[in-house]
Amino acid sequence: MIQVPEKLQDLLTDEKKAYAYLATAMSDGSPQVTPIWFNTDGEYILINSAEGRVKDRNMRARATVALCIADSADPYRYIQIRGKVVEITAEGADAHIDALAFKYLGAEKYPMRNPAEKRVTYKILPIKINAL
Amino acid sequence: MIQVPEKLQDLLTDEKKAYAYLATAMSDGSPQVTPIWFNTDGEYILINSAEGRVKDRNMRARATVALCIADSADPYRYIQIRGKVVEITAEGADAHIDALAFKYLGAEKYPMRNPAEKRVTYKILPIKINAL
Repeated sequence: MIQVPEKLQDLLTDEKKAYAYLATAMSDGSPQVTPIWFNTDGEYILINSAEGRVKDRNMRARATVALCIADSADPYRYIQIRGKVVEITAEGADAHIDALAFKYLGAEKYPMRNPAEKRVTYKILPIKINAL
Repeated sequence: MIQVPEKLQDLLTDEKKAYAYLATAMSDGSPQVTPIWFNTDGEYILINSAEGRVKDRNMRARATVALCIADSADPYRYIQIRGKVVEITAEGADAHIDALAFKYLGAEKYPMRNPAEKRVTYKILPIKINAL
């Protein structure tokens, strides 16, 4: 289980639809930050992108990432996670982006699906969690 | 002026009270991300922290940072900024945190002021802006 205080566990649920702000490291060591959909299987934070994007290239080259999962209704409620990308896979990634589209948009299928891009799922193992 | 499309300029105003998600680089190159108050003088993004915090230490050692300024009412409206901390100063930093407390809380004075901590203002020069 991802260890967060009970009062913040709603931020990890599909019902809450909280966004994550994902920071990855560029090749020169500078950070990049981007809002992203996520869900969790209880152990890992799962995010989805497409091959070749900046964050995809960053995570393939440098596995350490950070996330801030924030309550849009109350910005003082958030979970900070530093972690490591332990798996990058195209397997199941189309179904995963559809699941995220269902979580965030209530859509059966991800409506921005572009056949020219290859979707990828990233499994992030939380290593350090700050949640107050 | 900070170059963002007109339709996103509200995110930089005091009225909007948008939050920034600030990514800094740890000494091992891994990123850290944290929600933060900000305002702008038109040219720089100005943030405020206290001496000795993780982000303070990171920005003193590694000046490249990234910010995502997001509309909490509509997470698809956001500005991504990669930039450089060009000045770190305690001068005016108490007045600056009060100005931020007024922006975000409507308070005349920053209510969490702790005399044991030394407030610091960071001037961030935007170098690369993504705003769609």
